[in-house]
Amino acid sequence: MAPSAVESVSHLPVTVKGASSDGFLDVKLAASAQDDLVLKTFRCLIADLCEQFKGGHPGSAMGMAAIGVALWKYVMKYSPENPSYFNRDRFVLSNGHTCLFQYTFHHLVGYKNMTFDQLKSYHSSRTDSFCPGHPEIEHEGIEVTTGPLGQGVANAVGLAMATKHLAATYNKPGFDVVNNTTWCMIGDACLQEGVALEAISLAGHWKLNNLVLIYDNNQITCDGSVDLCNTEDVNAKMAASGWNVIDVMDGNYDIEGIVRALLTAKNNKDKPTFINIRTLIGIGSKSAGDAKAHGAAFGAEDVANIKRKFGRDPEQHFSVSDEVYDYFREAKPRGREIESEWNQLVLKYGKEYPELAKEFALRVEGNLTDDFMKYIPKKEDLPTTPTASRKSSGLICNPLAQNLKNFMVGTADLSPSVNMIWKDKVDFQNPDLKTACGINGDYSGRYIHWGIREHAMASISNGLAAFNKGTILPVTSSFFMFYIYAAPGIRMGALQGLQQIHVATHDSIGTGEDGPTHQPIALASLYRAMPNLLYIRPADSEETAGAYIAAMKAKNTPSLISLSRQNLEQYPQYSSREGVQKGAYVFIEEADADVTLIGVGAEMVFAVQTASLLASKYGMKARVVSFPCQRLFEAQPIEYKRDVLQYRSKAPRVVIEAYAVNGWERYADAGISMHSFGHSLPGKAAYKYFGFDAEVIAPKIEALVQDVRKEGIECLRGEFRDLNFKH
Amino acid sequence: MAPSAVESVSHLPVTVKGASSDGFLDVKLAASAQDDLVLKTFRCLIADLCEQFKGGHPGSAMGMAAIGVALWKYVMKYSPENPSYFNRDRFVLSNGHTCLFQYTFHHLVGYKNMTFDQLKSYHSSRTDSFCPGHPEIEHEGIEVTTGPLGQGVANAVGLAMATKHLAATYNKPGFDVVNNTTWCMIGDACLQEGVALEAISLAGHWKLNNLVLIYDNNQITCDGSVDLCNTEDVNAKMAASGWNVIDVMDGNYDIEGIVRALLTAKNNKDKPTFINIRTLIGIGSKSAGDAKAHGAAFGAEDVANIKRKFGRDPEQHFSVSDEVYDYFREAKPRGREIESEWNQLVLKYGKEYPELAKEFALRVEGNLTDDFMKYIPKKEDLPTTPTASRKSSGLICNPLAQNLKNFMVGTADLSPSVNMIWKDKVDFQNPDLKTACGINGDYSGRYIHWGIREHAMASISNGLAAFNKGTILPVTSSFFMFYIYAAPGIRMGALQGLQQIHVATHDSIGTGEDGPTHQPIALASLYRAMPNLLYIRPADSEETAGAYIAAMKAKNTPSLISLSRQNLEQYPQYSSREGVQKGAYVFIEEADADVTLIGVGAEMVFAVQTASLLASKYGMKARVVSFPCQRLFEAQPIEYKRDVLQYRSKAPRVVIEAYAVNGWERYADAGISMHSFGHSLPGKAAYKYFGFDAEVIAPKIEALVQDVRKEGIECLRGEFRDLNFKH
Repeated sequence: MAPSAVESVSHLPVTVKGASSDGFLDVKLAASAQDDLVLKTFRCLIADLCEQFKGGHPGSAMGMAAIGVALWKYVMKYSPENPSYFNRDRFVLSNGHTCLFQYTFHHLVGYKNMTFDQLKSYHSSRTDSFCPGHPEIEHEGIEVTTGPLGQGVANAVGLAMATKHLAATYNKPGFDVVNNTTWCMIGDACLQEGVALEAISLAGHWKLNNLVLIYDNNQITCDGSVDLCNTEDVNAKMAASGWNVIDVMDGNYDIEGIVRALLTAKNNKDKPTFINIRTLIGIGSKSAGDAKAHGAAFGAEDVANIKRKFGRDPEQHFSVSDEVYDYFREAKPRGREIESEWNQLVLKYGKEYPELAKEFALRVEGNLTDDFMKYIPKKEDLPTTPTASRKSSGLICNPLAQNLKNFMVGTADLSPSVNMIWKDKVDFQNPDLKTACGINGDYSGRYIHWGIREHAMASISNGLAAFNKGTILPVTSSFFMFYIYAAPGIRMGALQGLQQIHVATHDSIGTGEDGPTHQPIALASLYRAMPNLLYIRPADSEETAGAYIAAMKAKNTPSLISLSRQNLEQYPQYSSREGVQKGAYVFIEEADADVTLIGVGAEMVFAVQTASLLASKYGMKARVVSFPCQRLFEAQPIEYKRDVLQYRSKAPRVVIEAYAVNGWERYADAGISMHSFGHSLPGKAAYKYFGFDAEVIAPKIEALVQDVRKEGIECLRGEFRDLNFKH
Repeated sequence: MAPSAVESVSHLPVTVKGASSDGFLDVKLAASAQDDLVLKTFRCLIADLCEQFKGGHPGSAMGMAAIGVALWKYVMKYSPENPSYFNRDRFVLSNGHTCLFQYTFHHLVGYKNMTFDQLKSYHSSRTDSFCPGHPEIEHEGIEVTTGPLGQGVANAVGLAMATKHLAATYNKPGFDVVNNTTWCMIGDACLQEGVALEAISLAGHWKLNNLVLIYDNNQITCDGSVDLCNTEDVNAKMAASGWNVIDVMDGNYDIEGIVRALLTAKNNKDKPTFINIRTLIGIGSKSAGDAKAHGAAFGAEDVANIKRKFGRDPEQHFSVSDEVYDYFREAKPRGREIESEWNQLVLKYGKEYPELAKEFALRVEGNLTDDFMKYIPKKEDLPTTPTASRKSSGLICNPLAQNLKNFMVGTADLSPSVNMIWKDKVDFQNPDLKTACGINGDYSGRYIHWGIREHAMASISNGLAAFNKGTILPVTSSFFMFYIYAAPGIRMGALQGLQQIHVATHDSIGTGEDGPTHQPIALASLYRAMPNLLYIRPADSEETAGAYIAAMKAKNTPSLISLSRQNLEQYPQYSSREGVQKGAYVFIEEADADVTLIGVGAEMVFAVQTASLLASKYGMKARVVSFPCQRLFEAQPIEYKRDVLQYRSKAPRVVIEAYAVNGWERYADAGISMHSFGHSLPGKAAYKYFGFDAEVIAPKIEALVQDVRKEGIECLRGEFRDLNFKH
């Protein structure tokens, strides 16, 4: 518990030449006149790029210029001609609004797509621009999409975890096939957002010594001085969180000081490192050091001033001399060399460790899980007596996790509730912890204790998934309600097309006694509306198998599987894993039905019971449709949709689900749903309290059918009936 | 920036008697035999209460018993017979699952509703229970509803801010009409959640010396030892965040030590205080110190063991002797005395400061804003040329904030963008900061710089609103997209019925260049589905006025007003503030229309332009409905709804909104909407890219109308048409 020493790099006996343990840094620091030219060119170029369309974020990018030179010229391991070379260093721009910083260095070091023409498309109307307002993963050399502040820190933690995990799994003495560093650039804002604070705590706990946070400490945010809302001792806080801390006092010009700090961090063995670098936002501008420099162009006059201040021609725009390109000339050959050395190492590794190398190759290709179907239990092996779908989930997910080494499964401190533990699972932990407190784990472990940090869980998982497509499949778990904390991260996973499985248990009011704070009502509406996300709510074990199959097949899409706390009836005679993959399917068919009941997830039981009661008590014929996933259903051909929902029939369709009904109006004419928050009662009593009870539902549906018989089905068009709404 | 000293209470020269500056603590500590009896009784009772229905959270409540005695017997200022006495101390149970802790002390000190019978209703099927699974604000003596971890810390920060603010506004020398302390109980989890970490940082910044975090440090969460996921130096981290830190080593029995720590904290002048108290979860049980003690009953055998261990009869259940009640006998008379002293003080204050006292009385009653309408600009005073609705919002909100003293308005670091600053606004700040760095503010200030902490902004605002109904009206602001970070807090505000206004600017893809990370697509679906929340999207300045009027009238409901970044056409000839309050209304009427276009918020322009184009180019008649708020519309009589939407007409209804369409299917047959995340382009170009362009929309609607003419309106029933969906 002793706080770490706060070290100032100036006291460290580090010399730049040869300081890098892998011999990578073999260039001397450029002469300072050259440095100076590059910094000036870079800063004027940023000002010009924002000025052309009168917008963008120039200030921090200008302030960070020397950091960029240190990274791209001296320290980072990357290959401009093959930006996705596997063992490259990962760079995350958590302060994503400074994207011009990254785009411009990519241009200068020779990334193929980042032509000058492209660079100038920043903030233009070009729909084929590679320079969006924040970095986006689909573009060359961008590791993760950033912009929502704080999340980049968590992404970087995930990238660094991936390295640690792969290294522990595949490296052998003399064969460090994975040993890259993750560099994450942050601004003042990232240190305020809770998601970053959660992730920082975890990185310190895990002692991720391959992770470096580079703090662009300009003490300015949109509102003005950071002192307006943050006066904490950030270095002491980082040290208390288990990080090494290095100060750099002149981040504007002291490239050598920054390089020394970066290398000290890279070579550090015991902890992640936080480098606190003082910079001046909008350096050179008359708004320098002011919030005005943050998110607006400077105006033509000030841009001219900036150029004069830096001794450049104010009439020359977008000016980059050959000397500047020449300064970065070594980037490409060095990249080729690094990559070629790595390829040779992997070749030798293959001869020395053929089995391991074969598996490693599958991981690099991202194809490890192609045979996942053989681990999914067959229908006949699933339970037939009432079973909570969180238990069914364990029966299906645990064999997958046990056998597929790319599964990294974690929970936000709900191991006893979510059933994600497989036999002989090993925790992902810093191995030294084992000695200290007897915890069984090391970096090769694939079970993650996230703690009570749902947002970091989702956002770090984005980093794990983004390390390399398919190399790691992150599986998260928590109560469904607390995926509202994780929502910003889940969204970024969907936006980036990262395959992940989010296992959300205790859905709906059936979760019971914990009460309204724990009973999700509106959250499913968010996840059903979210592009590129599969929200799947299976009704029994067979449907849970279907949900996992759909999630495994969705290689560019995260899935959220929504499960019950309580035991659910099993319907082996009706339920179908194939049906789940179509989003909805006929559960119980009935010719010339009076009504179609749509049953969803844990509330399927009410649909089936109501159908039965309608027949026995009211002589009415009800068919039942199971509807676990709206997005999968939307992808079906219109003919299939019409078959399942009988759009053209004269019988009404009623959805039964203990959520807000929003969105179901597309498929149903009426609903038994929730119109308020829940209530603290045992699950069965909670259902009854809100009218989820076949004895209560059946007469309402009978009345609806009678109305339709009288007035015709047209009476329901545009007048969705909330059958259990109480004003 | 120097870290605070970490003080151990054992080194402090504090004596209990007379240590309290307001003379409140005038009882001696009870004899230790009595203490012992109470602790044993309490612990066995908790075990019994969980055992009766085989569920609940016994372990931490048992571990915290001595803390409870210190609080309710010795330190807290409260009145059992009038739990809502204005100047009471506020107590927040952030680890809300330990609710039996609070319920049981409420019972012991004599809260009227908390009878023994009620206490035993914990986890029962009684629908009239006052003992839900987590504390709920509607019940006697509960200040805020807790359960979602970490948020209670933020609520407590809000409650403490409210005290500071009211004290700075109304207290006079000799007249401390508001001087209560806020006590917040937390477990290990609350220190991991990002929202708490954000709030902790703010409380340290604001030097809220009236706030005390009491850390039940039992080092156990659901997964096991906290070491599994958290090994930071929490005391050092709190000190670095600007908090005093006090350690209590024996939290299980050392009531005197706890009292001394609490009083030291209460009397502390400069900072909030963090008291780190070591306890044993499930003390007395065979699961003591183990995660098993957290969230399950112990089983009959262990409950008997516990009783034996504590020297009690294992056959006796729910046993509380008269001696135990007697131990707390002073709570009621002391409460009466405190309240009566305060009433007398306020009376004298009224004589000394009649004007101020009158205003103070309005604050206490929560009726300060009843005359708000006089500050809302008239239609004729609103802009008629294109204006961003975030600007319109400023025109309406700023006079309200300037004149209504219960407005506390803040922003998550977007002052230059959200237009929430009024003339001569004063920041809410620690006044010492002014001296230190020239920032203009003190505790009487009503403008809050939240920093980049959206979740804390919303959750602290819940605390501000919960201080006393109507006393403070919190107004938050940020970009709409980042209300996804705030969603857990917004939800808890809606669940608790707390009036608040959330001002969300930069909605829809119109926000432009910042790209898909900043363009909300699915988020409105969440807020429209969320019970007891008004999500209002006004189309122009007049509608923005209507949105504020609706929000001001909704005294038990938070509102989220969703506004554009970009300039919007103004429609004084069509738009209506009264219409907004009905949720939807006819914008442009047209007899025998071929189609009804539903325009929403910033996309109204496309509805109006399309209607015009349909007339001029296709000879079709389109009526336009403006639809700013679904929940307000749902509250209208069916006749009104039919009038507006013409449900029974043969003309289709088409909604035009640049969001996911989920939920609009209730009102529309077809939609022009978003089916993917957005794109980084200037606003106008982004709209065009996704087909929001009258020239593109009109022919699609023409085709739809032709279909309907051919096939009849029935063809659309249950087949919602996504008119701009691209697979």
